[in-house]
Amino acid sequence: MDRYSKSGVNLKLARSVKARLPLLLRNATRPEVLGEVGAFGGLFRARFAGYREPVLVASMDGVGTKLRIAVEMKRHDTVGQDLVNHCCNDIAVMGADPLFFLDYIGTGKLKKHVFEEIVAGLAKGCAKAGVALLGGETAQMPGFYANGDYDLVGTMIGVVDRRAILDGSRIRVGDVVVGLASTGLHTNGYSLAREVLFRRLRLRVSSRPHELGGASLGEALLKAHRNYHPLLALLRRKNVLIHAAAHITGGGFKENIVRVLPPDCSVRIQCGAWKIPPIFKFIQNRGGISDAEMYRVFNMGIGMAFIAPGRSVAAIYSAAARFKIPACTIGGVVKGKPSVLFDRLDPETRL
Amino acid sequence: MDRYSKSGVNLKLARSVKARLPLLLRNATRPEVLGEVGAFGGLFRARFAGYREPVLVASMDGVGTKLRIAVEMKRHDTVGQDLVNHCCNDIAVMGADPLFFLDYIGTGKLKKHVFEEIVAGLAKGCAKAGVALLGGETAQMPGFYANGDYDLVGTMIGVVDRRAILDGSRIRVGDVVVGLASTGLHTNGYSLAREVLFRRLRLRVSSRPHELGGASLGEALLKAHRNYHPLLALLRRKNVLIHAAAHITGGGFKENIVRVLPPDCSVRIQCGAWKIPPIFKFIQNRGGISDAEMYRVFNMGIGMAFIAPGRSVAAIYSAAARFKIPACTIGGVVKGKPSVLFDRLDPETRL
Repeated sequence: MDRYSKSGVNLKLARSVKARLPLLLRNATRPEVLGEVGAFGGLFRARFAGYREPVLVASMDGVGTKLRIAVEMKRHDTVGQDLVNHCCNDIAVMGADPLFFLDYIGTGKLKKHVFEEIVAGLAKGCAKAGVALLGGETAQMPGFYANGDYDLVGTMIGVVDRRAILDGSRIRVGDVVVGLASTGLHTNGYSLAREVLFRRLRLRVSSRPHELGGASLGEALLKAHRNYHPLLALLRRKNVLIHAAAHITGGGFKENIVRVLPPDCSVRIQCGAWKIPPIFKFIQNRGGISDAEMYRVFNMGIGMAFIAPGRSVAAIYSAAARFKIPACTIGGVVKGKPSVLFDRLDPETRL
Repeated sequence: MDRYSKSGVNLKLARSVKARLPLLLRNATRPEVLGEVGAFGGLFRARFAGYREPVLVASMDGVGTKLRIAVEMKRHDTVGQDLVNHCCNDIAVMGADPLFFLDYIGTGKLKKHVFEEIVAGLAKGCAKAGVALLGGETAQMPGFYANGDYDLVGTMIGVVDRRAILDGSRIRVGDVVVGLASTGLHTNGYSLAREVLFRRLRLRVSSRPHELGGASLGEALLKAHRNYHPLLALLRRKNVLIHAAAHITGGGFKENIVRVLPPDCSVRIQCGAWKIPPIFKFIQNRGGISDAEMYRVFNMGIGMAFIAPGRSVAAIYSAAARFKIPACTIGGVVKGKPSVLFDRLDPETRL
């Protein structure tokens, strides 16, 4: 009898679940992929037709404590899509197109059906995003993770033409900030949300507060992170000028917008410009949380912000409508040091 | 007062430790890197001079439960090198040269000095390997990790000329297996080692059993994973023919060598051919573990195996000597289905 059993995603587990996932995994590929699953590394041809001076763009991220909602809901097929879409957005805001993705699952003791659901979600997310799932690793680390818990981490590699890199340097005073709707919390703020909803209010994932209009808390909290890359790619194809894009994730509006601002530009956000989705209002009202903290921790209904010249706005609206993503103008660029100022916030607000 | 505090490696923490790490981080870069730390994604120019048909090779991995040794030793500057070197090896065995690396640190509550040590180790490993540390993410996930614990995950991207991909298809009956010495356990088998040494024998990381010749258990267990890429690169420059390389990690000799074997080739390993380092013998003797299990879980002193024609052996020895890596012939390729057979093992052995 063995005292020891190590599981690698490329080996035993992958082999044993292969039978159930062939279709999904087959779609999570691209023509550039060479070789087979199970090698030490994944192979991807570095031929970037149509890119004059190709630059690789890389981002690595995790799902965060949204995973705990998945564990409590016993539903593991959405967090993979969250992760793929989150990583897509992080490189899409630099102007890049995603190419391939790798995943890591860290866990104490892995259950086969949980593993299958996670990988199915990753594969589905990759297939939808036109990304190859090039490799992965599953580490069983006894004693590191509580029973049933796991961490899920991904790396996305994409490509951008050097001239097309969105770095915010073209932002000018007078530019407009267009907000694109999120589907919910995406993958940020779950520690605060869980603290308020489950510890203080003692609600459950199955609770259906009337403020959410019929949906359970678990359903509302598990909604998949939206991928904005297809919208950005369409705008590029149509030559609609965008000066910068900011993925509204950890650090909220302020940290993520400031990242792209040139030294002489500031952004003003009109907080009444869009309808804040019920889940955020519910957390804020029931938790007694200030606007300042809400806007720092959550996306407040805006998953992505474009900074663009006013003449691009109509085309952005029209392109967003094609993807059924609600969009509206939420602010503008003014003269000042890089910062984000909020209009119409409560008096306590100091960001 | 905030109820919530999220830390991203690119933002607050990175900023606060930046002062102490400029030299290390400055060395963990390459000329192809564009842009600055703190953007949504890292940028790397995709110009692969000298590669006729460049193919990207990607691998993602973690450090595993070796992290627990680092936590117990309160020494966090070596696990980053372990991870970088492990990932280098995983793509080097496909014939690739490493280019850039991204890291993820998952933790409950991060201590600044621990974070600094981890990042310093990652940067040192990258600088030594000639790899750019292109990005990273640090996720604070309250409730997911025990106090003081963390998970450390990395992704390595490299490049190989398509014609130079090492996939084992050129392996022939009569080829020789050359073993390259490991420095110790590298990053595999720690769950079993900890079970035997710390639970059953109740030893401590500070214990100095006479079998280890003066070293403490913690020192022996924390020795950094060796990077074999420089050796493989030298052999390629010298046109020394290698048919395949296998990184001896999780799954031991068998799983990792079988991965590269063509359908009509089998490998025989002569277990007496090299001196098994004291740490493995100590674990085996004190734990009463069979040879079969030892060779499946541990590298037994061989961190990398090359499969090559006999005429390459002298040149491999000579190149390995330049890097002070002990090398010896440990077996050969025979006719048969892909498998690894061990000579001179105890009778219980059935792999």
